Amino acid sequence: MSHRIWGVCATMEPKLPERLLMGPGPSPVSPAVRLAMAEPVVGHLDPRFIQLMDAVADGLRLVFGTANRLTLPLSGTGSAGMETMVANWVEPGDRMLVVRHGFFGERIRDAAARRGAEVAVLDAPWGTAVPADQFFDTLERVGPVKLVAVVLAETSTGVLQPLDGWADAVHAQGGLLLVDAVTAIGGMPVDVDPRGIDVCFAGSQKCLSVPPGLAPFTVGERALAALRDRRTPVGTWYFDLTMLGRYWGQERFYHHTAPVSMVYALAAALEEVRQEGLPARFARHRRAARALWAGLEAMDLELLVDEPHRLPSLTTVRVPDGVDDATVRGLLLERFNIEIGGGLGALRGKIWRIGTMGYGARIENVVRVLSALEVVLGRRGGAEAAWRAWESER
Amino acid sequence: MSHRIWGVCATMEPKLPERLLMGPGPSPVSPAVRLAMAEPVVGHLDPRFIQLMDAVADGLRLVFGTANRLTLPLSGTGSAGMETMVANWVEPGDRMLVVRHGFFGERIRDAAARRGAEVAVLDAPWGTAVPADQFFDTLERVGPVKLVAVVLAETSTGVLQPLDGWADAVHAQGGLLLVDAVTAIGGMPVDVDPRGIDVCFAGSQKCLSVPPGLAPFTVGERALAALRDRRTPVGTWYFDLTMLGRYWGQERFYHHTAPVSMVYALAAALEEVRQEGLPARFARHRRAARALWAGLEAMDLELLVDEPHRLPSLTTVRVPDGVDDATVRGLLLERFNIEIGGGLGALRGKIWRIGTMGYGARIENVVRVLSALEVVLGRRGGAEAAWRAWESER
Repeated sequence: MSHRIWGVCATMEPKLPERLLMGPGPSPVSPAVRLAMAEPVVGHLDPRFIQLMDAVADGLRLVFGTANRLTLPLSGTGSAGMETMVANWVEPGDRMLVVRHGFFGERIRDAAARRGAEVAVLDAPWGTAVPADQFFDTLERVGPVKLVAVVLAETSTGVLQPLDGWADAVHAQGGLLLVDAVTAIGGMPVDVDPRGIDVCFAGSQKCLSVPPGLAPFTVGERALAALRDRRTPVGTWYFDLTMLGRYWGQERFYHHTAPVSMVYALAAALEEVRQEGLPARFARHRRAARALWAGLEAMDLELLVDEPHRLPSLTTVRVPDGVDDATVRGLLLERFNIEIGGGLGALRGKIWRIGTMGYGARIENVVRVLSALEVVLGRRGGAEAAWRAWESER
Repeated sequence: MSHRIWGVCATMEPKLPERLLMGPGPSPVSPAVRLAMAEPVVGHLDPRFIQLMDAVADGLRLVFGTANRLTLPLSGTGSAGMETMVANWVEPGDRMLVVRHGFFGERIRDAAARRGAEVAVLDAPWGTAVPADQFFDTLERVGPVKLVAVVLAETSTGVLQPLDGWADAVHAQGGLLLVDAVTAIGGMPVDVDPRGIDVCFAGSQKCLSVPPGLAPFTVGERALAALRDRRTPVGTWYFDLTMLGRYWGQERFYHHTAPVSMVYALAAALEEVRQEGLPARFARHRRAARALWAGLEAMDLELLVDEPHRLPSLTTVRVPDGVDDATVRGLLLERFNIEIGGGLGALRGKIWRIGTMGYGARIENVVRVLSALEVVLGRRGGAEAAWRAWESER
């Protein structure tokens, strides 16, 4: 028996490079948040950890824009939020309308069908939002439905879907509005309460700039009532919100062991959000995105989405004719240590996805990615135009 | 717009104390593993991260004792492993036998019933293991069954369940053996291949000494064939192993965003396991546990489990008559910064659970928890007896 190992600074192998993450997530994580994860671990039922859980839930209410009591980070990545939403509110035979303007809308449809929902789909061309009238007409035609699900910020297309009046329409016909806010939270208003959203999930690794691994989740009173009225038990144990709510609520009922270090990271990130303030944070995202757009357009690159529907957190740009998507992204990654994203599904090979998320939404990063693109594509003027756009909003 | 926030070392609020974690998990995490989590985040599809994923899968094969190709850490806590096992192998109407010698056996039954299994249960008094004969008899009486599930190391009772001949018996009648190894992995042999286990899940936060948040998981060929033969689609999207296996396998199909920093922690911890070597690591766990047992018995405390069935990672001891469980644990935590666990379910208030797990399985920690117990209980001789037992194995 030897204690030698405790004297060795064993670390992970292989070593990893330091990348600038300008893709669709994960986003760059601040030093303070990274150091929070290195703090000693406490027990998941420690009274002091439970205080921290309360602070985290409060911080999530702030970024969700809600007073919902049942607001918590699920112990899984953003997709776990989607799974939880579907598993808790879909019962076999339930009628549901899924608005599908990208890859992640299709994913909701897939998960809901697995749980036995009868799903109607409203499609929009990828890169566009669904017009309000079309939504209201479709709802009237296929309704009444118990559930309507929509992605607020489509990570596959960079489209922001306006939701004005949607909740009222859904409620009027007796249903619930379920929203994917993964690429919105922390970078733009989610406005759960003002918009009347009933269930909303998000992810930690986008505009909150926490490593992937947690799915912020919030549930309104109307959705809680529907959960109580289920005809069948929730088909999942791990994501059963009736039990999870008892762990994160006053009762502190033991359900599973919370991912303590990830909760530390979220707590530290939410503290950074509080210190910056939401209006300043949202303005910084918009300003970084507009600088990026100006730079890309100055390089004669074509943005996929019309300006009114562009996300402040994620920009999609067409791969120019004659340019190989994978080669460009490979050079950016291997030579410049910069990650940007490729397209998903039907947009594979056709677009790049460039994030301006959380800690990453800064002019120095926008200039760095544009300068590298200039070199790789043999084009000019991107970085300079971005800088001018940024300064013009001073 | 201000950059002030980036100059402030914002960290989580409230601050947390440094606890010695000697409960049923999470266990203490080494400084090297904690620092690995503070490394800059890379993308989940970065080629360098994919190399790290391969190294992690190899390390998991080592601690599972398997050559199974499909071996990966699930993006959830240990309970997510249980959920995944049930969701992928249980179909409505499947016949299943759950061996229930503690709280976590009951949990498997609950999850399987939610998925529509017809579950038979074999109970053993909490604190004992199921005798082999009784298992074989029951299997013959209730069989054939498609699935048999059992907890190898019961975290609620501290019982090690021997599995000699179980897999052969289960296979002979055409079923699969599913095993919960949460409190075993990294602290004692799991022996997936030698024992013929078909599906096995574990947790990161016990004898691997990684923070909670990952569930190591491995699947043998027989179970893979059963997965391919399912009559119905897997009812969960997030835990669908047919898709997860494509992300962790050669294909690198995008499924969900891996919890990158947690994977760093696991990689660093598995590197520590490699450096120490499994035989030395298992011996250290046994030696620490025997020292703890000697100390507790020297203090006239009664252990719940007969020695042959005790876990090297978790010891259960009866709360003495006239002593209030919560008061003692509260004093240990608040005055000594030491966490031990209370009982679950039927053992609530009746036992304490003291862990000797991973980085925590050292004589200095055993002495520290015994000394504090001596003070709080007004008993003597525990720490000294532990030290003598430890030294006698030198």
